[in-house]
Amino acid sequence: MQAILDEIAKTIAASPERGQVASYIPQLARVDPAKFGIAVVLADGSCCSAGDAGEAFSIQSISKVFTFTMALERLGDAIWERVGREPSGDPFNSIVQLEHERGKPRNPFINAGAIAVADAVMQTCQPHQAVGEILQFVRLLADDGNIGLDAKVARSEKQSGDRNASLAHFIASFGNLQHPAPAVLDTYFDHCSIAMSCAQLARAGRYLATAGMIESGATRVISEQQARRINSLMLMCGHYDGSGEFAYRVGLPGKSGVGGGILAIAPSKASIAVWSPGLDKIGNSKLGTQALEMLVARTGWSIFGH
Amino acid sequence: MQAILDEIAKTIAASPERGQVASYIPQLARVDPAKFGIAVVLADGSCCSAGDAGEAFSIQSISKVFTFTMALERLGDAIWERVGREPSGDPFNSIVQLEHERGKPRNPFINAGAIAVADAVMQTCQPHQAVGEILQFVRLLADDGNIGLDAKVARSEKQSGDRNASLAHFIASFGNLQHPAPAVLDTYFDHCSIAMSCAQLARAGRYLATAGMIESGATRVISEQQARRINSLMLMCGHYDGSGEFAYRVGLPGKSGVGGGILAIAPSKASIAVWSPGLDKIGNSKLGTQALEMLVARTGWSIFGH
Amino acid sequence: MQAILDEIAKTIAASPERGQVASYIPQLARVDPAKFGIAVVLADGSCCSAGDAGEAFSIQSISKVFTFTMALERLGDAIWERVGREPSGDPFNSIVQLEHERGKPRNPFINAGAIAVADAVMQTCQPHQAVGEILQFVRLLADDGNIGLDAKVARSEKQSGDRNASLAHFIASFGNLQHPAPAVLDTYFDHCSIAMSCAQLARAGRYLATAGMIESGATRVISEQQARRINSLMLMCGHYDGSGEFAYRVGLPGKSGVGGGILAIAPSKASIAVWSPGLDKIGNSKLGTQALEMLVARTGWSIFGH
Amino acid sequence: MQAILDEIAKTIAASPERGQVASYIPQLARVDPAKFGIAVVLADGSCCSAGDAGEAFSIQSISKVFTFTMALERLGDAIWERVGREPSGDPFNSIVQLEHERGKPRNPFINAGAIAVADAVMQTCQPHQAVGEILQFVRLLADDGNIGLDAKVARSEKQSGDRNASLAHFIASFGNLQHPAPAVLDTYFDHCSIAMSCAQLARAGRYLATAGMIESGATRVISEQQARRINSLMLMCGHYDGSGEFAYRVGLPGKSGVGGGILAIAPSKASIAVWSPGLDKIGNSKLGTQALEMLVARTGWSIFGH
Repeated sequence: MQAILDEIAKTIAASPERGQVASYIPQLARVDPAKFGIAVVLADGSCCSAGDAGEAFSIQSISKVFTFTMALERLGDAIWERVGREPSGDPFNSIVQLEHERGKPRNPFINAGAIAVADAVMQTCQPHQAVGEILQFVRLLADDGNIGLDAKVARSEKQSGDRNASLAHFIASFGNLQHPAPAVLDTYFDHCSIAMSCAQLARAGRYLATAGMIESGATRVISEQQARRINSLMLMCGHYDGSGEFAYRVGLPGKSGVGGGILAIAPSKASIAVWSPGLDKIGNSKLGTQALEMLVARTGWSIFGH
Repeated sequence: MQAILDEIAKTIAASPERGQVASYIPQLARVDPAKFGIAVVLADGSCCSAGDAGEAFSIQSISKVFTFTMALERLGDAIWERVGREPSGDPFNSIVQLEHERGKPRNPFINAGAIAVADAVMQTCQPHQAVGEILQFVRLLADDGNIGLDAKVARSEKQSGDRNASLAHFIASFGNLQHPAPAVLDTYFDHCSIAMSCAQLARAGRYLATAGMIESGATRVISEQQARRINSLMLMCGHYDGSGEFAYRVGLPGKSGVGGGILAIAPSKASIAVWSPGLDKIGNSKLGTQALEMLVARTGWSIFGH
Repeated sequence: MQAILDEIAKTIAASPERGQVASYIPQLARVDPAKFGIAVVLADGSCCSAGDAGEAFSIQSISKVFTFTMALERLGDAIWERVGREPSGDPFNSIVQLEHERGKPRNPFINAGAIAVADAVMQTCQPHQAVGEILQFVRLLADDGNIGLDAKVARSEKQSGDRNASLAHFIASFGNLQHPAPAVLDTYFDHCSIAMSCAQLARAGRYLATAGMIESGATRVISEQQARRINSLMLMCGHYDGSGEFAYRVGLPGKSGVGGGILAIAPSKASIAVWSPGLDKIGNSKLGTQALEMLVARTGWSIFGH
Repeated sequence: MQAILDEIAKTIAASPERGQVASYIPQLARVDPAKFGIAVVLADGSCCSAGDAGEAFSIQSISKVFTFTMALERLGDAIWERVGREPSGDPFNSIVQLEHERGKPRNPFINAGAIAVADAVMQTCQPHQAVGEILQFVRLLADDGNIGLDAKVARSEKQSGDRNASLAHFIASFGNLQHPAPAVLDTYFDHCSIAMSCAQLARAGRYLATAGMIESGATRVISEQQARRINSLMLMCGHYDGSGEFAYRVGLPGKSGVGGGILAIAPSKASIAVWSPGLDKIGNSKLGTQALEMLVARTGWSIFGH
């Protein structure tokens, strides 16, 4: 495995086409596009990594996997009254469908859906403590108490967040938020600003490769069935309107973030985190996807056959 | 396996809620909703079945898997200039997106996409012989020369086919058809009227479970990679706007038809065909889906972990 | 009036920016963009004209005013079950709304609406004679038996008519056509191919300026109220997604055709026809609109005050 | 005229079908549906009225005519960079088009457009003084210093304003607001809460019937051309997706408000205000429209002929 990762890191380092780093906030725009990290945590807990796998980056939308896991675990199937589980099509359509479907977002991994999920998590605790609980949950999963928010990123997101504010008020106008839109947006922007390294992220995702268990089977995060279902949601909806492309090329459940990270799951085998800040035109990590494609080609981990 | 199938058939037989049989043409409307068949062909070629697995039914949209396989094999990646590979969202959106995306259907398994694929197949042979070649291909896959079209169904589809005619002319208006819309529609309606039993259908789908090979590895239909990719397309797009639901509940690549059939693939393990004519409100077989859910629960075949 | 028209013709002749001649069929593409005609028929029946006002051109969508008049006169308010009377927004939206509103076109002057109106006219006579009756009606209005179809234009439209065929089948799929889509399309393409000169067209439109009467009050075409209502429809919907622009700049009810003609009505005062083949990017005559703007500025005929 | 208004008031009073009073905020929901007022101010300044024409009501969206007049007068044609002048289609489409057209609302009379106009007015003064200036302008037009805001209505609108907040942030996300969305919303909700009687409103609208002049020609509010253009916008866009219906039935430029008021203009003849709180399903005053239809039938004021 280490040899595979080293080879991938070397190939990626040599790639001239690195995509465009997200530029809508300065904190993301100034990240070095040459960065690349990859980490694999196998089902037995062992870990391999290469490149900048120890360096923290803004996980952004990858955090939606963790907030959704909390909401599913705490609310059970009631979460499906708040959010659907179908792919959303392109961003243009997502707002059309949101209106068509009376303010119920299509799935928990588009922004509108994650805002509804943030609101749902706020229902299960003191609303202002939701961010703290999300952070605690991620630290537990990663077995690392040092994980935190990047306050500058969070502040900057809030300042340039008109599109997400529009979505939150839109959902609220259909009665699908329990808390005021600005409070929900605070929770949402905060959890998107969590910073983690590939090594931390791969470890945090391991419960999805091990049927919901962590620490070698000692602690259950969610049920086996729930783990499978989150994997299916990641496959169907984890890369926005590039989900079909990712399934086609990589063949693993995965969730991308605009910071250039991707968390991918090889069920029963491994949790994988990659990071390359340059994005393709859909907004998914260009070289991160390529790295995963190489990894799956070498390991035969595609869920679609080998 | 036989015991599992018998138990499933027994449970399904007792189910009072059977969904609505498709009624837009009389030939489908008069099918007995009590019918149920299931057949499993394992990777080694052995077959089990239960219920009405030997009775032919109209495979309808399941035929899109076979025409797409032909197009991919004959045209290679050039097929992606004609059709995309992303889920389409609800039917309402599919026409919006078709306009937004200048007449290029989102994927080969929605009607618009299958019409473009039918046109692509017509490019690779004498256009009027396309249906004959499709039929030959399906007979080869199923190793059964008796498979044929249901001429009444085909004629009836053509008479009530204004929606599909609208789609075909719409695509043509963007220059994305090489043949006149009425000729393409003839090919399309004809291949949708192929009649097969569950046993035939499960056998025909086996190449997708065996990395593109049939007859125990003696004949290659498509490459390993192409087989994986078709599986990923079936998972993402095989059940219209219920694809997320099917992935969530069943966890296998599958393609449904409005005749009540579903072809599902457990990669490296089995090809499965079920048939129950009653549909859910999206248009997928209600009890067919339930039967697959039971089968996967008992076999642990979900691609999302076990 | 003659002096005004001469001045307008002179100004238009000198205009360097003439717009783009419609190019989707060769018969329209080869029309000389330098052509310009204008004719005014006053309420008393007197006529002035300038430029190429005696030369026939393809009236195209202007014919929709005449077919709608026939349908309203023959079917009365029952026509409103087939078609609405609201503006349609941009072409992109028109198909979205057509689906949203279950196949009922928004108004009689967009293509979808005119197709439904053609079908409605076919209901009131022997379907295959509808075109003949439409032509007779236009000859009666213009008091000129020499008006005819341009068969080459009609044939060419049918050959490149996939977009309209798509609309017709789409409407049919909701049960909103009484005759087969191809037959309705034949009627539609035929009436759009009527060729008239500005002088003929202005005379044909006079009933809308004279409360429904022709021949100096001797013959009633439609009721006063119906004439007002057709004028309101022309104002709201007569220039596709440029209707607001036309109302804003010209301030008269009007209907444009892709051949470069516009019929405009100054209620109680005059019927006006202009022709300049170059179109703006919405598809309305660029210099025709400008000519009408000049005419209204000089005559004070705006319906919005003076 | 007085006899006509008395007859209309009597007929309306006897009408059993009064529509539904707006209920999204309590202040509107508790208005008595039996109220009815009508006032006509002729071009010479004389006034007639009947019913509850002296009672103040919430003018709501009618205020958009006054804010747009200010913006057009202060910014000239530059306002057209912020907002379009085409009808918007149904509410469903308005958000689709807003995305399609990159955050530029279709016209100044839909909510999105009026929010952009409020922002534009804020540009021309101290932003926080915009509401004060709007109020001064309305007082000047109505020649009545007692006109004011209804603070309860404004506060209530702000509390239940998620839909408008969503629109404002959406527009802002395309860079089409100069001030923060919440500040623009404050201006918008405030000016919508202006309370006026029919008598005040009819007087305030007189400048649109008199080519931009008030006080018998002593003061120019806007140019003749601008007055005509505002009238054309009111006709095309003044009744949301019922604009075509209003033009068809009434035949005058008009602007409705959800409080049940309508301001209508008979160019060169009169400014008319009606008030009946019950709305049709589009959201326009049901009996107010009917009253105007009666008035136009008796006076022959339709702009589409008589």
